[in-house]
Amino acid sequence: MRIEKLDESTKKNLLADLLKRSPDNYGQYEAGVREILNEVKEKGDKAVFSYTEKFDKAKIDASNILVTEEEVKEAYGQVENSLLAIIRKSLKNIESYHAKQMQYSWFDSKPDGTILGQKVTALRRVGVYVPGGKAVYPSSVLMNIVPAKVAGVREIIMTTPPGADGKVNPVTLVAAKEAGATVVYKVGGAQAIAVLAYGTESIPKVDKITGPGNIYVALAKKAVYGHVSIDSIAGPSEILVLADETANPRYVAADLLSQAEHDELASAILVTTSQELAQKVSLETDEFIKTLSRGEIIQKSLDNYGHILLADSLEAAIDTANEIASEHLEIVTKDPFTVMTKIRNAGAIFIGEYSSEPLGDYFAGPNHILPTNGTAKFFSPLSVDDFLKKSSIISYSREALEVVHLDIEKFAQAEQLTAHANSIKVRFDK
Amino acid sequence: MRIEKLDESTKKNLLADLLKRSPDNYGQYEAGVREILNEVKEKGDKAVFSYTEKFDKAKIDASNILVTEEEVKEAYGQVENSLLAIIRKSLKNIESYHAKQMQYSWFDSKPDGTILGQKVTALRRVGVYVPGGKAVYPSSVLMNIVPAKVAGVREIIMTTPPGADGKVNPVTLVAAKEAGATVVYKVGGAQAIAVLAYGTESIPKVDKITGPGNIYVALAKKAVYGHVSIDSIAGPSEILVLADETANPRYVAADLLSQAEHDELASAILVTTSQELAQKVSLETDEFIKTLSRGEIIQKSLDNYGHILLADSLEAAIDTANEIASEHLEIVTKDPFTVMTKIRNAGAIFIGEYSSEPLGDYFAGPNHILPTNGTAKFFSPLSVDDFLKKSSIISYSREALEVVHLDIEKFAQAEQLTAHANSIKVRFDK
Repeated sequence: MRIEKLDESTKKNLLADLLKRSPDNYGQYEAGVREILNEVKEKGDKAVFSYTEKFDKAKIDASNILVTEEEVKEAYGQVENSLLAIIRKSLKNIESYHAKQMQYSWFDSKPDGTILGQKVTALRRVGVYVPGGKAVYPSSVLMNIVPAKVAGVREIIMTTPPGADGKVNPVTLVAAKEAGATVVYKVGGAQAIAVLAYGTESIPKVDKITGPGNIYVALAKKAVYGHVSIDSIAGPSEILVLADETANPRYVAADLLSQAEHDELASAILVTTSQELAQKVSLETDEFIKTLSRGEIIQKSLDNYGHILLADSLEAAIDTANEIASEHLEIVTKDPFTVMTKIRNAGAIFIGEYSSEPLGDYFAGPNHILPTNGTAKFFSPLSVDDFLKKSSIISYSREALEVVHLDIEKFAQAEQLTAHANSIKVRFDK
Repeated sequence: MRIEKLDESTKKNLLADLLKRSPDNYGQYEAGVREILNEVKEKGDKAVFSYTEKFDKAKIDASNILVTEEEVKEAYGQVENSLLAIIRKSLKNIESYHAKQMQYSWFDSKPDGTILGQKVTALRRVGVYVPGGKAVYPSSVLMNIVPAKVAGVREIIMTTPPGADGKVNPVTLVAAKEAGATVVYKVGGAQAIAVLAYGTESIPKVDKITGPGNIYVALAKKAVYGHVSIDSIAGPSEILVLADETANPRYVAADLLSQAEHDELASAILVTTSQELAQKVSLETDEFIKTLSRGEIIQKSLDNYGHILLADSLEAAIDTANEIASEHLEIVTKDPFTVMTKIRNAGAIFIGEYSSEPLGDYFAGPNHILPTNGTAKFFSPLSVDDFLKKSSIISYSREALEVVHLDIEKFAQAEQLTAHANSIKVRFDK
């Protein structure tokens, strides 16, 4: 891995470079995505089946788009018991973490009869998208479904692309069942997003679509935003390790590569105050790459977006971490909790040398669907919040309104909204 | 107002009709908005000044785009003391309500050394858009700024279009100052959204843009979503009154008109179980329209999207309210709190005959920036939540990781992510 001195110009170039991976810069796919959305909106199932044949090489129609109980049973037969046991342990941790995010309605009443409050309601029906493609991600299934389940969503519709044999991967299916998906439909890509946003003869419209996917899925989600709600738009995976001389170079190198293996646009960055660590990590990554099955992807990813940045001070390193706002941030320094308190922007923060990033991907409990591409400055991990919405509650008594009615009328008049003023006034006309 | 029987076909037509007002259906403005966004992104200030001259007929440049302290002082001189006093009372209520929405970081630690948590951080810099145009809305200024302020946002940048004289309305300016805007810039429309999303020489980029605006503002916000965060996209105003025979027809009519006066796309709907109330409300609205200054807009709005729906039962009326998911919902029935518990979808719920909708617009405390156009099914009122974001915290001890390390490795292997497995494995290699 290249080692660079961290200065203003390195940082500026790096930030600009990382943003090249933004879905904002894939305008050339927009027309294609829009066509898929419009076709599904207008022609429903028919368009969906035709896209599934085209993109997934699978023959799907109204008779087999819904995964049956038999298929689920078959899937259970194909999954190793030991893996099922691990999925169940992981699920328990994910449920227990997300349960702490639950929010509740509240009300306040005053002696004059005024009641103000906030009513919290779960969304009624949501769609979770689970990608197929290059690899199979049962962990994503758990991470998508659990927060919706904890929030109290009544209907959780999962969609995932079928293989050419018209089947869904058995591990994906078992994970969906374990996590509590209501139904699973065999549809993927932008056409799946269209189905969830508009509904077809086979599949009903949902209120919100969550889950990561490729660039077509990301653009489709952005296009339907507002018509339905979506979670944040996922970009390529990222890790930033913030480390000083106390860090173990072998662990740091292994963790950088764990994200680099996702795809060639993934980014793996070490920011360190120790030149010795920088050099050792660079050597260790070279060694590891030779032994890893996805070594080719890793090498390309590191060539594209891998960096070791040598910082003058811990403060400069922290500032850089805040500016990059990485999806995953590992803190491996002398006093990692103090450093953590200075972190403003990161999707998930891993503290200390035994908090390796994949621990969060699979097991610890917090969600692994996280803001990418600098959006941790304003977006949050997928959470129970995503599946709750709020309504304000206002109840005034005659007594309470009488005290302030002239104020409200005057305020409305100042905005020249005379019918607003009138609606208060009529209640106190003699 | 027209009186219709509430049945499935009336409801279906009405729902389709209301959705015609969605920003989804204004594709013809998209190209224009995109051009403004691109021009500002590429040419910065220069493009902004030229659009401001074109659309607002105002000569604005780097020397006067920022509202000065002198202009603020001048504005205070032009605002009646009695109005200032009302703004301050209203502000106090808004602050007190929003303070209850604050969320805090939490951490949990286990005996094995595991620490899991959620860090809550305020956004660093946000942009609030305040429309100018047909009327002046100081109340919107308060509603935009207070939740950001309560959340702890350090920099609140407000933008609002200048008049042809290059000045901002004094009441708007005083409201901004009172609520705690850091700075106010004179720029409006899609170009203001572009400035806030990309930054120019005069104005820095923000993390999130909130606040309602016209169709150009709505489309621009949707286009920059993902690059920055936005609040929900505002559509035309809406009221739905759910009432039985106990309601006062004069109050109901006045409240319907208070929303109809906003613009010709606003929607005002009464759903009632009482034929007598339906007829009386229809007569009362005719009477009020004659006396109100915005009678012409009101009449057009009622012709377009005004309805009195006669329901067979209270249950049918409640179901309809949930399906329409109105921005504002008034409940004026025998047992309004029981009805409220059955409401799933509404931006703000006003309970009982003294909770007139404008009370919420101006004074009670809850936010008046609310989800419109059926989006109350998945969006919430603007709140402190909008200005906070979360990072997960994961810290495992060696002891805790050792117990589960084989499980995690196996899970990663099942996803064929061998570098993920490796990063856990290296920590326990002999």
